[in-house]
Amino acid sequence: MIRIGVIGCGYWGPNLIRNFSEVRDAHVIVCADVREDRLQFVKQRYPAVEVTKDYKRLLQRKDIDAVSIATPASTHFSLAREALSYNKHVLIEKPMTKTSGQAEELIRAAKSKKRVLMVGHTFEYAGAVRKIRELLSRGEIGDIFYFDSTRANLGLFQKDVNVIWDLAPHDLSIMLYALKLHPVRVLAVGSAFVNSSIEDICYITLFFPKKIIGHIHISWLAPVKFRRTVIAGSRKMIVYDDVENIEKIKVFERGVTIKENNGPKGILERQLFYQMGDVWSPRIDTQEPLKIECEHFIDCVKKGKTPSSDGKNGLEIVRILEAVDESLKEGGKIIDI
Amino acid sequence: MIRIGVIGCGYWGPNLIRNFSEVRDAHVIVCADVREDRLQFVKQRYPAVEVTKDYKRLLQRKDIDAVSIATPASTHFSLAREALSYNKHVLIEKPMTKTSGQAEELIRAAKSKKRVLMVGHTFEYAGAVRKIRELLSRGEIGDIFYFDSTRANLGLFQKDVNVIWDLAPHDLSIMLYALKLHPVRVLAVGSAFVNSSIEDICYITLFFPKKIIGHIHISWLAPVKFRRTVIAGSRKMIVYDDVENIEKIKVFERGVTIKENNGPKGILERQLFYQMGDVWSPRIDTQEPLKIECEHFIDCVKKGKTPSSDGKNGLEIVRILEAVDESLKEGGKIIDI
Amino acid sequence: MIRIGVIGCGYWGPNLIRNFSEVRDAHVIVCADVREDRLQFVKQRYPAVEVTKDYKRLLQRKDIDAVSIATPASTHFSLAREALSYNKHVLIEKPMTKTSGQAEELIRAAKSKKRVLMVGHTFEYAGAVRKIRELLSRGEIGDIFYFDSTRANLGLFQKDVNVIWDLAPHDLSIMLYALKLHPVRVLAVGSAFVNSSIEDICYITLFFPKKIIGHIHISWLAPVKFRRTVIAGSRKMIVYDDVENIEKIKVFERGVTIKENNGPKGILERQLFYQMGDVWSPRIDTQEPLKIECEHFIDCVKKGKTPSSDGKNGLEIVRILEAVDESLKEGGKIIDI
Amino acid sequence: MIRIGVIGCGYWGPNLIRNFSEVRDAHVIVCADVREDRLQFVKQRYPAVEVTKDYKRLLQRKDIDAVSIATPASTHFSLAREALSYNKHVLIEKPMTKTSGQAEELIRAAKSKKRVLMVGHTFEYAGAVRKIRELLSRGEIGDIFYFDSTRANLGLFQKDVNVIWDLAPHDLSIMLYALKLHPVRVLAVGSAFVNSSIEDICYITLFFPKKIIGHIHISWLAPVKFRRTVIAGSRKMIVYDDVENIEKIKVFERGVTIKENNGPKGILERQLFYQMGDVWSPRIDTQEPLKIECEHFIDCVKKGKTPSSDGKNGLEIVRILEAVDESLKEGGKIIDI
Repeated sequence: MIRIGVIGCGYWGPNLIRNFSEVRDAHVIVCADVREDRLQFVKQRYPAVEVTKDYKRLLQRKDIDAVSIATPASTHFSLAREALSYNKHVLIEKPMTKTSGQAEELIRAAKSKKRVLMVGHTFEYAGAVRKIRELLSRGEIGDIFYFDSTRANLGLFQKDVNVIWDLAPHDLSIMLYALKLHPVRVLAVGSAFVNSSIEDICYITLFFPKKIIGHIHISWLAPVKFRRTVIAGSRKMIVYDDVENIEKIKVFERGVTIKENNGPKGILERQLFYQMGDVWSPRIDTQEPLKIECEHFIDCVKKGKTPSSDGKNGLEIVRILEAVDESLKEGGKIIDI
Repeated sequence: MIRIGVIGCGYWGPNLIRNFSEVRDAHVIVCADVREDRLQFVKQRYPAVEVTKDYKRLLQRKDIDAVSIATPASTHFSLAREALSYNKHVLIEKPMTKTSGQAEELIRAAKSKKRVLMVGHTFEYAGAVRKIRELLSRGEIGDIFYFDSTRANLGLFQKDVNVIWDLAPHDLSIMLYALKLHPVRVLAVGSAFVNSSIEDICYITLFFPKKIIGHIHISWLAPVKFRRTVIAGSRKMIVYDDVENIEKIKVFERGVTIKENNGPKGILERQLFYQMGDVWSPRIDTQEPLKIECEHFIDCVKKGKTPSSDGKNGLEIVRILEAVDESLKEGGKIIDI
Repeated sequence: MIRIGVIGCGYWGPNLIRNFSEVRDAHVIVCADVREDRLQFVKQRYPAVEVTKDYKRLLQRKDIDAVSIATPASTHFSLAREALSYNKHVLIEKPMTKTSGQAEELIRAAKSKKRVLMVGHTFEYAGAVRKIRELLSRGEIGDIFYFDSTRANLGLFQKDVNVIWDLAPHDLSIMLYALKLHPVRVLAVGSAFVNSSIEDICYITLFFPKKIIGHIHISWLAPVKFRRTVIAGSRKMIVYDDVENIEKIKVFERGVTIKENNGPKGILERQLFYQMGDVWSPRIDTQEPLKIECEHFIDCVKKGKTPSSDGKNGLEIVRILEAVDESLKEGGKIIDI
Repeated sequence: MIRIGVIGCGYWGPNLIRNFSEVRDAHVIVCADVREDRLQFVKQRYPAVEVTKDYKRLLQRKDIDAVSIATPASTHFSLAREALSYNKHVLIEKPMTKTSGQAEELIRAAKSKKRVLMVGHTFEYAGAVRKIRELLSRGEIGDIFYFDSTRANLGLFQKDVNVIWDLAPHDLSIMLYALKLHPVRVLAVGSAFVNSSIEDICYITLFFPKKIIGHIHISWLAPVKFRRTVIAGSRKMIVYDDVENIEKIKVFERGVTIKENNGPKGILERQLFYQMGDVWSPRIDTQEPLKIECEHFIDCVKKGKTPSSDGKNGLEIVRILEAVDESLKEGGKIIDI
């Protein structure tokens, strides 16, 4: 039985408690938050979970094997470092840290302590994303041309991060996971409309090997939720619309048609047309991705395995986010990663 | 070269002229309508086509091989009978006639004159409908359970027919063509809202062999166009939405899932779920159905073949429409066909 | 504080516990089910709720004010009667009972005991349905012509009810609630495909005052979930698609257009067209309907009010279901209600 | 009566002939193309139109008032210059010319000859685009934040232009027309996948005054047609999907909700949520845009008016296209316009 402490009980923390409580061999023992009302909320929903205002008391407990950190991004580094110093396995929400230096330090600490360090890139555990990776891996769409992702909604206008650090980790982790490739350069333009010091929309272009272009459009300013990813290849195109209940993924085939027209004086005219072919929407595993993520974390802790979304993975995302921030500050300059 | 005369140049007549003019070995010579403005319209669009106000002069011409009748339904019978008496091949718009007795008389006349008699059930020549017939024929959806069709729009409120004779021929011809079966009983309820003597909505239930149920909902009272057909079978379901530009036909598969829950004390709980499987949207031939219909008519005339939508076919639809009218008048009584 | 006992912890029971636990002044004390595994499930999720295999012990408790019954339909009557005999307020899931005689007896018993008797017609508490009732009440669509409802999915193939008793209560309660009218006659045709003694598809036609036609198509045989309601009126049309995440309700306006064509010799041609007008999708209250239902029940218990979906309401639905069954058995005969 | 000569009868030319033939006071006299088969095609469809293989003979005719040029982009400049030298009014398809110098020369020539010079930015005459301009002009969405346009389909892989010169003129003309603003800087990244010397996908970012960002994604590599424009503002968002038959434009409102939770010990918790509000889809004028464009051209010729899409307008688009090409060549450098 892996005994877990959860730090941070805002929006995401209760989801972690609920999902860990359904994982075999896992048990959420205690939960920490500085806000009394959030602790009361947890108390009411999960009467069996202890609560504390002092995360240090959670870390000091010997009966806690692993810690799940769901606090604001700026606190991830110090909390994770301290948790590792107490020999806890650590699952950190994304973005892993605020700087790549911090991410590297956590990786070193986890290695020296021989603890599992995992980042909560939840989408990598989603059925739709796994299906896309599978389709790309087996060459379903031919050569990959571009990977285009839009994630827009009404933002929560967080004070400690801009839209890039809030939303782009999702698209970046999906893109890197699905393509199994690493971008080499990045370029970003964006703007800060509502609060002039915090970007609320951004366009990011990523240059991958094999000439593949990645493109991400993120926005906090859309009254309606948009989550659409288009991956075009030499033979087919995948459209992944995460807002859809059914047919989240569609694979569009390309067809060729010959049109014959009866020309003048009986001369038959032929024309070749590219035309839409079949459309196929594969069935998707509908399990809650966070459940699979929690199971994977527990499995790694029990067996000493390296997680799919490990520290190295988290570090790469942070490095890209830093490059995006830099490009943005320079008004769209191309930055090597 | 088959030389054609078109009688009736309202909404549909010009479409016939345009399509016949693109068929090899066909030539529209002359067009008749009692309305001067419609003749002028044809004159402007198709300067090479002669026009006349007197259909009799069209029928009397020796250089006309075939006649295409696109006039109001109540005139179909007498015009077609007269055209056959002049030894013309005949293509009549749907509904073929106002009574089954009239349809039978036309069939006899065509037989004795050895002329082609075809009814313009255009949907039987549509790529989507042909694909559905193909899917059903090869057992794609398993045993057929029901065939449900909705056709609703803002009606033109014709004076000489109700919504049944205006719209149901489409759904009936699609249903019979796709199923390759003949209904044995029918039941209909409807209502006349706008003009109390002309039904503007109707629900029709058709009882087919093998327990298959056909159901048609037609309406002139819908501000938005609805054209959706659902065919459910023991293995799959076909949804045909004629309003869609792409993915007109979708085939929904059925999947079975096993959900495992981690029960109390490590007891694993299993549950069997039916779940949506893959969705597949086959590519459809996008040629204009009327073009294919016109080609087929010319082909039958040239080779003396029996058309796919021949007089017998038209007669069956008229018989069903009569039964629907009777059931409706009796407030929903079941009528044998 | 209203103290509640829940009888039946299958699919729906836990939802009742969860929602009642979030209602102010309500407290779920105990839960009964004959199945040990379901009790364990509740124990794990809601450690504060007591469980028992014997519902009689639940009913005998003095500290229970109200009982919520979520057992198979065939047991509703005897459980509700017994609960009322113990002076408990009662919330029964739909369908209220298996016969109208039973429903009448419960109404009498509740009246004599001065207890609240409510039926769980959950859709009457859904934001979308309430919005439709509001739109119809204020004459938004003009005179109502017809109300057409389709509810199709992969059924659970219950052994004690057919598709009518399983699904039609939803559509009937929505229809009666939104129209504020009572049907006077009914006609139904259906078929039993999978199990020859239990109908799995059915078409129901309801005749309302003012010539309004209600039509319900229910099916357990559709691999994909369909939940679409169309209400056509003299001015507008409402489409309610419960499968949609956003834009669940759309109101289609009707427009009139004048098309001008430049006719021959400069004569201007005018044609009047009906055409689609604006489409409007009103914002819907997205609160969980069951939550509102539970709050309403508690409110009625506390204040001695008559619930919106009371016993009389439940009785009417049962009477219609009986008429539907009778019509079905007679092969589509019209039955007066 | 304005007498028109059409030069170029490929895909677009026949559309021009058809639409001009329906404009009052306009008459297509003659049509020129070097391809015999295209002339035959025109002859068959429009027997009243003369045809010639030599455009010079068309230009030399005294009975021709205006010339409509629908040839490949590289020939636009010389043909238009020659037409102006013969004192003809000129309508050129987009892109107006291959260089801004050429466009400037045409503007000067038209001015000195006092002829109308118009560019065929057809979308500016589309009902949907005009509705968007109207909505933006009256402040419907509040302050404009960004304008995002995607145009993707299977390209025709023209030899004389890349995807930018083929597709971007549409999006640029829509954007400038709707915003009534002029971009000051541009940045573009793209790639050439199929033919390594001709770009087939491109991402363009445009920097407008008031911090507004324009973004265009164009692609020839998509098996399915995508034409979606999103315009986000401080109050609402417009989504324009040109592939839709109905509801081409949707306006999404933003709502604010207060959620109340029953907290512990009866403390009521309130939270403020941004939430989707109403969605409104205004009715769109469905007239063929090219028809309106042709009418506008004839009107300008007759009255000596400056067209809405005049030479200056065409020049601005060409200047932006040049800047996009330059940015692309420099790998995403920001270029001032």
